[in-house]
Amino acid sequence: MAANQPPFAARGTVGEVEMGLVFQPKFDADGLLPAIVSDVATGEVLMFAWMNAEALALTLKTCIAHFWSRSRRKLWKKGEESGNLMRVRELRTDCDQDVLWLKVSVEGEGVACHTGERSCFYRSLPLGAAPGPNLPLSRA
Amino acid sequence: MAANQPPFAARGTVGEVEMGLVFQPKFDADGLLPAIVSDVATGEVLMFAWMNAEALALTLKTCIAHFWSRSRRKLWKKGEESGNLMRVRELRTDCDQDVLWLKVSVEGEGVACHTGERSCFYRSLPLGAAPGPNLPLSRA
Repeated sequence: MAANQPPFAARGTVGEVEMGLVFQPKFDADGLLPAIVSDVATGEVLMFAWMNAEALALTLKTCIAHFWSRSRRKLWKKGEESGNLMRVRELRTDCDQDVLWLKVSVEGEGVACHTGERSCFYRSLPLGAAPGPNLPLSRA
Repeated sequence: MAANQPPFAARGTVGEVEMGLVFQPKFDADGLLPAIVSDVATGEVLMFAWMNAEALALTLKTCIAHFWSRSRRKLWKKGEESGNLMRVRELRTDCDQDVLWLKVSVEGEGVACHTGERSCFYRSLPLGAAPGPNLPLSRA
Protein backbone atom coordinates (compact mmCIF):
# COMPACT_ATOMS: atom_id res chain seq x y z
CA MET A 1 0.00 0.00 0.00
CA ALA A 2 1.49 3.34 -1.00
CA ALA A 3 1.82 5.60 2.03
CA ASN A 4 0.26 8.50 0.19
CA GLN A 5 -2.76 6.59 -1.04
CA PRO A 6 -4.91 5.63 1.92
CA PRO A 7 -7.32 2.92 0.73
CA PHE A 8 -10.30 4.82 2.08
CA ALA A 9 -12.79 7.26 0.62
CA ALA A 10 -11.79 10.85 -0.02
CA ARG A 11 -13.34 13.53 2.16
CA GLY A 12 -16.83 14.63 1.25
CA THR A 13 -18.88 17.59 2.37
CA VAL A 14 -19.20 18.48 6.05
CA GLY A 15 -22.65 16.89 6.02
CA GLU A 16 -21.30 13.65 4.54
CA VAL A 17 -18.46 13.54 7.04
CA GLU A 18 -20.64 14.25 10.07
CA MET A 19 -23.87 12.47 9.20
CA GLY A 20 -22.88 10.06 6.43
CA LEU A 21 -22.41 6.32 6.69
CA VAL A 22 -19.26 6.04 4.56
CA PHE A 23 -15.85 6.19 6.24
CA GLN A 24 -14.06 9.31 4.95
CA PRO A 25 -11.17 9.73 7.39
CA LYS A 26 -9.02 12.82 7.67
CA PHE A 27 -5.41 11.90 8.30
CA ASP A 28 -3.29 14.75 9.65
CA ALA A 29 -0.33 16.39 7.90
CA ASP A 30 1.84 13.43 8.92
CA GLY A 31 -0.70 10.92 7.61
CA LEU A 32 -1.84 9.94 11.10
CA LEU A 33 -5.05 9.60 13.10
CA PRO A 34 -5.14 9.81 16.91
CA ALA A 35 -6.35 6.54 18.43
CA ILE A 36 -7.86 6.25 21.91
CA VAL A 37 -7.82 2.73 23.37
CA SER A 38 -10.12 1.71 26.21
CA ASP A 39 -10.89 -1.57 27.94
CA VAL A 40 -14.13 -2.96 26.55
CA ALA A 41 -15.07 -4.44 29.93
CA THR A 42 -14.26 -1.59 32.32
CA GLY A 43 -14.28 1.53 30.13
CA GLU A 44 -10.85 2.47 31.48
CA VAL A 45 -8.71 4.36 28.98
CA LEU A 46 -5.62 2.19 28.50
CA MET A 47 -3.45 4.15 26.08
CA PHE A 48 -3.29 6.72 23.34
CA ALA A 49 -1.39 6.22 20.10
CA TRP A 50 -1.44 7.01 16.38
CA MET A 51 -2.44 5.07 13.27
CA ASN A 52 -1.45 5.60 9.68
CA ALA A 53 -3.55 4.16 6.86
CA GLU A 54 -1.62 0.89 6.84
CA ALA A 55 -2.00 0.40 10.61
CA LEU A 56 -5.72 1.12 10.36
CA ALA A 57 -6.18 -1.26 7.41
CA LEU A 58 -4.38 -4.04 9.31
CA THR A 59 -6.40 -3.34 12.45
CA LEU A 60 -9.65 -3.55 10.51
CA LYS A 61 -8.72 -6.76 8.72
CA THR A 62 -7.16 -8.65 11.64
CA CYS A 63 -9.05 -7.13 14.61
CA ILE A 64 -5.68 -6.86 16.36
CA ALA A 65 -4.60 -3.28 17.12
CA HIS A 66 -1.75 -1.94 14.98
CA PHE A 67 -0.30 1.55 15.33
CA TRP A 68 2.35 3.77 13.82
CA SER A 69 5.24 4.34 16.20
CA ARG A 70 6.27 7.96 15.79
CA SER A 71 9.48 7.47 17.79
CA ARG A 72 10.62 4.37 15.91
CA ARG A 73 9.02 5.44 12.64
CA LYS A 74 7.60 2.03 11.90
CA LEU A 75 4.47 -0.05 11.98
CA TRP A 76 3.82 -1.32 15.49
CA LYS A 77 1.79 -4.43 16.23
CA LYS A 78 1.07 -3.68 19.87
CA GLY A 79 2.02 -6.58 22.15
CA GLU A 80 3.83 -8.53 19.43
CA GLU A 81 6.80 -9.12 21.73
CA SER A 82 5.09 -9.14 25.14
CA GLY A 83 2.10 -11.21 24.09
CA ASN A 84 -0.23 -8.48 25.32
CA LEU A 85 -2.00 -8.15 21.99
CA MET A 86 -5.08 -5.95 21.86
CA ARG A 87 -8.13 -7.67 20.39
CA VAL A 88 -10.43 -5.00 18.99
CA ARG A 89 -14.07 -5.48 19.96
CA GLU A 90 -15.37 -2.19 18.62
CA LEU A 91 -13.87 0.59 16.52
CA ARG A 92 -15.52 3.98 16.33
CA THR A 93 -14.80 7.28 14.68
CA ASP A 94 -15.89 10.75 15.71
CA CYS A 95 -18.06 13.45 14.16
CA ASP A 96 -15.16 14.87 12.13
CA GLN A 97 -13.83 11.41 11.23
CA ASP A 98 -10.36 12.46 12.34
CA VAL A 99 -10.11 10.45 15.59
CA LEU A 100 -10.51 6.73 16.35
CA TRP A 101 -11.72 5.01 19.52
CA LEU A 102 -10.90 1.33 19.99
CA LYS A 103 -12.58 -0.81 22.62
CA VAL A 104 -10.28 -3.76 23.22
CA SER A 105 -9.58 -6.74 25.40
CA VAL A 106 -5.90 -7.12 26.18
CA GLU A 107 -4.52 -10.62 25.84
CA GLY A 108 -1.60 -12.19 27.71
CA GLU A 109 -1.03 -10.47 31.02
CA GLY A 110 -3.62 -7.80 30.31
CA VAL A 111 -1.05 -5.03 30.46
CA ALA A 112 -1.23 -2.07 28.09
CA CYS A 113 1.63 0.14 29.33
CA HIS A 114 5.32 -0.45 28.70
CA THR A 115 5.92 0.34 32.39
CA GLY A 116 3.99 -2.78 33.37
CA GLU A 117 0.86 -0.90 34.44
CA ARG A 118 -2.50 -2.07 33.15
CA SER A 119 -3.24 1.42 31.83
CA CYS A 120 -0.82 4.19 30.87
CA PHE A 121 -3.01 6.59 32.86
CA TYR A 122 -1.93 5.63 36.39
CA ARG A 123 -1.45 9.15 37.82
CA SER A 124 -3.86 12.00 38.58
CA LEU A 125 -3.39 15.74 38.67
CA PRO A 126 -4.64 17.77 41.66
CA LEU A 127 -7.95 19.37 40.69
CA GLY A 128 -8.41 22.85 42.05
CA ALA A 129 -4.67 23.52 42.22
CA ALA A 130 -2.94 26.54 40.79
CA PRO A 131 -0.44 25.58 38.10
CA GLY A 132 3.20 25.72 39.09
CA PRO A 133 6.53 23.97 38.78
CA ASN A 134 5.84 21.57 41.64
CA LEU A 135 2.40 20.30 40.79
CA PRO A 136 2.10 16.92 42.51
CA LEU A 137 0.74 13.81 40.86
CA SER A 138 -0.91 11.04 42.82
CA ARG A 139 -1.36 7.39 42.03
CA ALA A 140 -4.76 7.00 40.40
CA MET B 1 0.66 33.84 30.95
CA ALA B 2 3.20 33.86 28.13
CA ALA B 3 2.41 31.18 25.57
CA ASN B 4 5.98 29.99 25.52
CA GLN B 5 6.30 29.67 29.27
CA PRO B 6 4.04 26.92 30.48
CA PRO B 7 3.70 27.33 34.26
CA PHE B 8 4.66 23.72 34.83
CA ALA B 9 7.86 21.88 35.61
CA ALA B 10 10.43 21.29 32.89
CA ARG B 11 10.94 17.75 31.69
CA GLY B 12 13.12 15.54 33.85
CA THR B 13 14.71 12.18 33.16
CA VAL B 14 12.69 9.33 31.67
CA GLY B 15 12.50 7.82 35.15
CA GLU B 16 11.14 11.05 36.62
CA VAL B 17 8.59 11.42 33.84
CA GLU B 18 7.37 7.83 34.01
CA MET B 19 7.57 7.08 37.72
CA GLY B 20 7.80 10.50 39.37
CA LEU B 21 5.09 12.35 41.24
CA VAL B 22 5.70 15.81 39.79
CA PHE B 23 3.80 16.94 36.70
CA GLN B 24 6.34 17.47 33.90
CA PRO B 25 4.18 17.67 30.77
CA LYS B 26 5.49 17.50 27.24
CA PHE B 27 3.59 19.87 24.98
CA ASP B 28 3.99 19.13 21.27
CA ALA B 29 5.63 21.38 18.68
CA ASP B 30 2.45 23.50 18.60
CA GLY B 31 2.37 23.79 22.39
CA LEU B 32 -0.54 21.36 22.73
CA LEU B 33 -1.45 18.21 24.62
CA PRO B 34 -4.06 15.72 23.34
CA ALA B 35 -7.02 15.48 25.74
CA ILE B 36 -9.37 12.50 25.91
CA VAL B 37 -12.72 13.23 27.57
CA SER B 38 -14.91 10.46 28.96
CA ASP B 39 -18.12 10.37 30.98
CA VAL B 40 -17.26 9.76 34.63
CA ALA B 41 -20.45 7.75 35.15
CA THR B 42 -20.51 5.52 32.06
CA GLY B 43 -16.90 5.44 30.85
CA GLU B 44 -18.05 6.42 27.37
CA VAL B 45 -15.52 8.48 25.44
CA LEU B 46 -17.29 11.76 24.69
CA MET B 47 -14.79 13.76 22.68
CA PHE B 48 -11.16 14.37 21.85
CA ALA B 49 -9.57 17.82 21.81
CA TRP B 50 -6.37 19.72 22.54
CA MET B 51 -5.14 21.85 25.44
CA ASN B 52 -2.41 24.44 25.53
CA ALA B 53 -0.82 25.46 28.82
CA GLU B 54 -3.39 28.19 29.43
CA ALA B 55 -6.34 25.87 28.83
CA LEU B 56 -4.83 23.29 31.15
CA ALA B 57 -4.13 25.86 33.86
CA LEU B 58 -7.72 27.12 33.68
CA THR B 59 -9.08 23.58 33.71
CA LEU B 60 -7.05 22.76 36.81
CA LYS B 61 -8.05 25.91 38.65
CA THR B 62 -11.74 25.98 37.77
CA CYS B 63 -12.47 22.24 37.27
CA ILE B 64 -14.35 23.24 34.10
CA ALA B 65 -12.84 21.87 30.90
CA HIS B 66 -11.09 24.41 28.68
CA PHE B 67 -9.41 23.57 25.39
CA TRP B 68 -7.48 25.20 22.58
CA SER B 69 -9.51 25.36 19.38
CA ARG B 70 -7.09 24.64 16.57
CA SER B 71 -9.60 25.72 13.90
CA ARG B 72 -10.52 29.00 15.58
CA ARG B 73 -7.06 29.48 17.10
CA LYS B 74 -8.44 30.56 20.45
CA LEU B 75 -9.12 29.42 23.96
CA TRP B 76 -12.33 27.43 24.11
CA LYS B 77 -14.42 27.08 27.25
CA LYS B 78 -16.40 24.04 26.15
CA GLY B 79 -20.15 24.57 26.52
CA GLU B 80 -19.88 28.28 27.25
CA GLU B 81 -22.61 29.07 24.73
CA SER B 82 -24.70 25.89 24.92
CA GLY B 83 -24.57 25.53 28.69
CA ASN B 84 -23.16 22.03 28.32
CA LEU B 85 -20.13 22.77 30.46
CA MET B 86 -17.90 19.87 31.38
CA ARG B 87 -17.24 19.56 35.09
CA VAL B 88 -13.96 17.72 35.57
CA ARG B 89 -14.13 14.97 38.20
CA GLU B 90 -10.71 13.46 37.57
CA LEU B 91 -7.74 14.46 35.45
CA ARG B 92 -5.02 11.97 34.62
CA THR B 93 -1.84 11.96 32.60
CA ASP B 94 -0.09 9.04 30.93
CA CYS B 95 3.29 7.37 31.35
CA ASP B 96 5.00 9.86 29.02
CA GLN B 97 3.10 12.84 30.45
CA ASP B 98 2.17 13.94 26.96
CA VAL B 99 -1.54 13.02 26.97
CA LEU B 100 -4.43 13.98 29.30
CA TRP B 101 -7.55 12.02 30.22
CA LEU B 102 -10.47 13.94 31.74
CA LYS B 103 -13.38 12.20 33.42
CA VAL B 104 -16.25 14.66 33.37
CA SER B 105 -19.91 15.13 34.00
CA VAL B 106 -21.59 17.21 31.32
CA GLU B 107 -23.94 19.90 32.58
CA GLY B 108 -26.97 21.35 30.83
CA GLU B 109 -28.41 18.91 28.31
CA GLY B 110 -25.54 16.47 28.78
CA VAL B 111 -24.46 16.80 25.17
CA ALA B 112 -20.77 16.79 24.24
CA CYS B 113 -20.92 16.89 20.44
CA HIS B 114 -21.70 19.95 18.30
CA THR B 115 -24.00 17.69 16.22
CA GLY B 116 -26.28 17.26 19.23
CA GLU B 117 -25.11 13.73 20.01
CA ARG B 118 -24.16 12.88 23.57
CA SER B 119 -20.76 11.62 22.38
CA CYS B 120 -18.82 12.52 19.23
CA PHE B 121 -18.19 8.79 18.71
CA TYR B 122 -21.63 7.78 17.40
CA ARG B 123 -20.51 5.62 14.46
CA SER B 124 -18.65 2.31 14.22
CA LEU B 125 -16.38 0.85 11.57
CA PRO B 126 -16.96 -2.71 10.28
CA LEU B 127 -14.45 -4.98 12.01
CA GLY B 128 -13.05 -7.69 9.77
CA ALA B 129 -13.63 -5.66 6.61
CA ALA B 130 -11.03 -5.04 3.95
CA PRO B 131 -10.29 -1.32 3.59
CA GLY B 132 -11.76 0.36 0.56
CA PRO B 133 -13.43 3.52 -0.69
CA ASN B 134 -16.89 2.40 0.37
CA LEU B 135 -16.31 1.26 3.91
CA PRO B 136 -19.69 1.54 5.64
CA LEU B 137 -20.18 3.07 9.05
CA SER B 138 -23.02 2.06 11.33
CA ARG B 139 -24.72 3.90 14.14
CA ALA B 140 -22.99 2.86 17.35
